[in-house]
Amino acid sequence: MKPYVLGIDIGGTNTVFGIVDARGTVIASSSIKTAKHANIEDYIEELYTEVMRLITVNDAVDKINGIGVGAPNANYYTGNIEHAANLIWEGTIPLAAMLEEKFNIPVAITNDANAAAIGEMTYGAARGLKDFIMITLGTGVGSGIVVNGQLVYGHDGFAGELGHLIVKRSNGRLCGCGRTGCLEAYCSATGVARTAREFLEIRTEPSLLRNIPIDQITSKDVYDAAMQGDQIAKDIFEYTGTILGEAFADMTVFSSPQAFILFGGLSKSGELLLKPLRAAMDRNMMNVFKGKPKVLLSELKEADAAVLGASALGWEVKPIEQA
Amino acid sequence: MKPYVLGIDIGGTNTVFGIVDARGTVIASSSIKTAKHANIEDYIEELYTEVMRLITVNDAVDKINGIGVGAPNANYYTGNIEHAANLIWEGTIPLAAMLEEKFNIPVAITNDANAAAIGEMTYGAARGLKDFIMITLGTGVGSGIVVNGQLVYGHDGFAGELGHLIVKRSNGRLCGCGRTGCLEAYCSATGVARTAREFLEIRTEPSLLRNIPIDQITSKDVYDAAMQGDQIAKDIFEYTGTILGEAFADMTVFSSPQAFILFGGLSKSGELLLKPLRAAMDRNMMNVFKGKPKVLLSELKEADAAVLGASALGWEVKPIEQA
Repeated sequence: MKPYVLGIDIGGTNTVFGIVDARGTVIASSSIKTAKHANIEDYIEELYTEVMRLITVNDAVDKINGIGVGAPNANYYTGNIEHAANLIWEGTIPLAAMLEEKFNIPVAITNDANAAAIGEMTYGAARGLKDFIMITLGTGVGSGIVVNGQLVYGHDGFAGELGHLIVKRSNGRLCGCGRTGCLEAYCSATGVARTAREFLEIRTEPSLLRNIPIDQITSKDVYDAAMQGDQIAKDIFEYTGTILGEAFADMTVFSSPQAFILFGGLSKSGELLLKPLRAAMDRNMMNVFKGKPKVLLSELKEADAAVLGASALGWEVKPIEQA
Repeated sequence: MKPYVLGIDIGGTNTVFGIVDARGTVIASSSIKTAKHANIEDYIEELYTEVMRLITVNDAVDKINGIGVGAPNANYYTGNIEHAANLIWEGTIPLAAMLEEKFNIPVAITNDANAAAIGEMTYGAARGLKDFIMITLGTGVGSGIVVNGQLVYGHDGFAGELGHLIVKRSNGRLCGCGRTGCLEAYCSATGVARTAREFLEIRTEPSLLRNIPIDQITSKDVYDAAMQGDQIAKDIFEYTGTILGEAFADMTVFSSPQAFILFGGLSKSGELLLKPLRAAMDRNMMNVFKGKPKVLLSELKEADAAVLGASALGWEVKPIEQA
């Protein structure tokens, strides 16, 4: 096996890529603007030029085992990006095939949360774990489920949308997916901000959060206020952690994971989030699973995580079949 | 590979066993009373005698590839039955090891619902499916989850307890597991009977079900009344199917199965259950999965299903390691 992999993380704004070794060290990385090219061929041309520059400078030519790509709505099975709302290209893009032809290196793609799970299993907190669930708490709630050492893709490649478990069956909040009551509408960064607005409207006591225009409150503001002892802010985390813990107890009856691994902005809230989360998990856990699943934090450095996660797929690629 | 497997289904009352060929034909079967022997060694002695009699009569000596056992609380990983409330033997029973030593044939064990899933994949409605969820609607609600062609056991061997997903977060019914609001408390045969009692107490209109003492109403009574056009009985199925369909939509975001396969008494209710189930699934399904997962009925004959399910494990056993 060649000594390096290339990780490419395609976001709506930036595409970050890096050369990674087997121990999870990012040897070198760079980025281009994703949205600069309305035409996918032009985008791939620039990406190729910049990646080859990075590979050449770092003496990695012919040393790349595989390319792993994390991208919104990327389908592992088909190699396509399918109708990604956050990307400029419309419809179905056969990204893996296009990159493979351009680079002549095997390519595998998956969505961001699945990439994070594989990254954590290869280099991070999930090393040695065969059954775990990665939960990314960012603008939305993403997930990557690993069962018996393998990522769960489902029959269509889209499994693992745990941010869209229904946690409020009636009068739930509208979710970006068009339904109501999804986990993501409560336990994402935007969900926390929504909870803040609700609590501030319903309750009358003073709060540091009242110094901020209500439609501009972010989860970071809620965190800062809670750290200063603000009761409403602390209650917001209690509410968020409780819903997440209840959902984790439900997820446990499905795949009985050894651990839930948290990643993303909100996971840095520490005990503000983790304490009510663990308490709710324990209260709601079926007896046979009680005390078993751990809640761990990602061990990947945030700046590197997206590239590392994507890159990990590069160790699993199949060699290109010669015609 | 040898031409037959032996399936053993251990229930609280009877232990049924049969010789099965690769096409899922039960060549011959017999049974013993499970609870007759308080001592597990005596039980295994009688089981061995009766199984060997069956094997000898059917010219299957040295033709058994493996023994598969379905039993309550059976753990695939450890080979143990662990604290099964319905069985006479207490504590942890190393059943697979005991049977393997007695028969000198490799043995694998799992719980009933997992056995049903493997049976369906090997001989039934799930042939050719790599991602599906088996749901058994009996006294309780059991499940066996198959992902990428493999049963999901979880890190401890107890995964797939979907009957214990929480479907009512507040004011839920007490479940046998000690928690409240579990799927099983609503969508099992006993759950349907509980719904009948609730509906008859709350509502005042006439119903055929009022001819039956309220604490003796069974799901079969509700079925019979619904088939005669009884509105309350039809509403009970509507309520049950709706909750099940909502739960199926939630399960779909986890593993994106090709199909849900229903087995057990309640699954024979036909469109009374399936119509509201499919409607609720569709209403609650996340867009990316809409219209994808099918709802299928088991294709295993009920009389043979338990033995067939258990037997299917006998094709997957590892040869006994010679010391």
